[in-house]
Amino acid sequence: VGPGDDAAVLSTGADEQLVVTTDVLIEGTHFPSGSRSDLIGYRAIAVNLSDIAAMGAEPRFLTVALTLDQIDDEWVKGFAKGIAFCASKYGVKIVGGNIARGALSLAVTAIGVVPTGQCLLRSTARIDDDIYVTGTIGAASAAVKDGVKVPPLELNELWSRRVDDMSCRYFMPLPRVQMGVALRGLASAAIDISDGLMADLGHLTRSSGVGAEIELDRVPVWKSMDAEIAIEASDDYELLFTAPAKEAERIAEMAVRIGTDITCIGKVTAGESVAVNGEVGRIDSPKGYRHF
Amino acid sequence: VGPGDDAAVLSTGADEQLVVTTDVLIEGTHFPSGSRSDLIGYRAIAVNLSDIAAMGAEPRFLTVALTLDQIDDEWVKGFAKGIAFCASKYGVKIVGGNIARGALSLAVTAIGVVPTGQCLLRSTARIDDDIYVTGTIGAASAAVKDGVKVPPLELNELWSRRVDDMSCRYFMPLPRVQMGVALRGLASAAIDISDGLMADLGHLTRSSGVGAEIELDRVPVWKSMDAEIAIEASDDYELLFTAPAKEAERIAEMAVRIGTDITCIGKVTAGESVAVNGEVGRIDSPKGYRHF
Repeated sequence: VGPGDDAAVLSTGADEQLVVTTDVLIEGTHFPSGSRSDLIGYRAIAVNLSDIAAMGAEPRFLTVALTLDQIDDEWVKGFAKGIAFCASKYGVKIVGGNIARGALSLAVTAIGVVPTGQCLLRSTARIDDDIYVTGTIGAASAAVKDGVKVPPLELNELWSRRVDDMSCRYFMPLPRVQMGVALRGLASAAIDISDGLMADLGHLTRSSGVGAEIELDRVPVWKSMDAEIAIEASDDYELLFTAPAKEAERIAEMAVRIGTDITCIGKVTAGESVAVNGEVGRIDSPKGYRHF
Repeated sequence: VGPGDDAAVLSTGADEQLVVTTDVLIEGTHFPSGSRSDLIGYRAIAVNLSDIAAMGAEPRFLTVALTLDQIDDEWVKGFAKGIAFCASKYGVKIVGGNIARGALSLAVTAIGVVPTGQCLLRSTARIDDDIYVTGTIGAASAAVKDGVKVPPLELNELWSRRVDDMSCRYFMPLPRVQMGVALRGLASAAIDISDGLMADLGHLTRSSGVGAEIELDRVPVWKSMDAEIAIEASDDYELLFTAPAKEAERIAEMAVRIGTDITCIGKVTAGESVAVNGEVGRIDSPKGYRHF
């Protein structure tokens, strides 16, 4: 059943659970006004895939609802290209769509599957677990500060630069889909870093009823970025996860196998506070982190 | 897994297909500015359930993404009450949510299940099928023309008036969930009437590659409404469906059994035109209906 019908019809097998996530992205809030529509589309898909990845699920299906002030054919064509491009890179099918008139915004729903009982939650971290993060932190936010100066290239070209070129990191984050799947049965808890490492670590520790201690000098920062800035930088969509210390070796091997860098940046602790140990001294539960 | 996680985890059995629909509702476009938030919430859920009903599926799960200019606790509380109220009336679970800052709008995703291969499509009407519609047409649009003067009553009170009180019909449409399920194996095609009877009949006939002939004096209109106005009135969320003439008796019995009025208003025809036979003479494919 194609997008023309009232709704999408999806087949599922037994022994599986569905993982569903909806995100809304609004011009001016979730992406800069006047951005390229293909990049807006790419990003909208990628950030939803990241949510599915954080659950340890395999993304399968997407629906996209678009609201637009006025129908601009070129804009819509670019947008359609961007969502299709990203979806195809991750083997996900766009099964439904919707266009309405209104201020520019998108609502994307992603649906994934995971073997029953194996999904990763943010609420199941255990005291003394190691805390890991994928990739590096800070590039997307640095790109935003720099005005997101994406070179005027085709999607394919930008895609090949997405890892190393800071300007691509905002619109082309790297949803850690393979890592999420590989962490099933290994990680004790996971979350994606959309709000910033400290903010999302706060979400995870609060949900789990634990605290955390982070070593600032271990945080894998984008190039020469200041770690204190990087841990508060948003929009990276890296995975933050916890795992028992006894799994350290298996996790390290798995990360090498799938070719994704991971870094152990600290420990889950008893209590409620998130402490950051760093060169500037110990920052214990700074005020800004109270209201996660 | 509750709404606090990155995504919702849903269980499904085998032999089932999922039906997923996403709708965006924007203040000023899809509901009047300054509307009661509980009613906005109710309607957002109801219209999505209607999409699921039109597919012959049973609605199960909902996700709701809200964008708001500013967080007004009372507003959000009312909204939450409205979506929960409607969801509970139809036995559907809200499994995920999201609040972001932006112009007031909602994105609702509804997920339903249907036995594999039994869902109702809009593209499968056959020549000579009867064309039916549920309930009556025109009340919601009449309510809008009247300024949607909903009495200042609690949701429960309004709900008990939703069938007979015109003012309630806009915010509390009647998604035909039971009817959709009962039409599996009986109807040849179905669609819900959100854009208007003629508009959505046009969607159905175009998808099916057929025409239609409607008897204006058979259209079940709201009270003494003019049928020519009623067939173009939007927001009713009644079901429009087609079925082979040989199923007429079974369909009539089923409708009595589930207590939903249905009316046969015409026939599927060969060709592409939608003809309306009425007192004012035969209106053959009026211009306004060309661009469905």
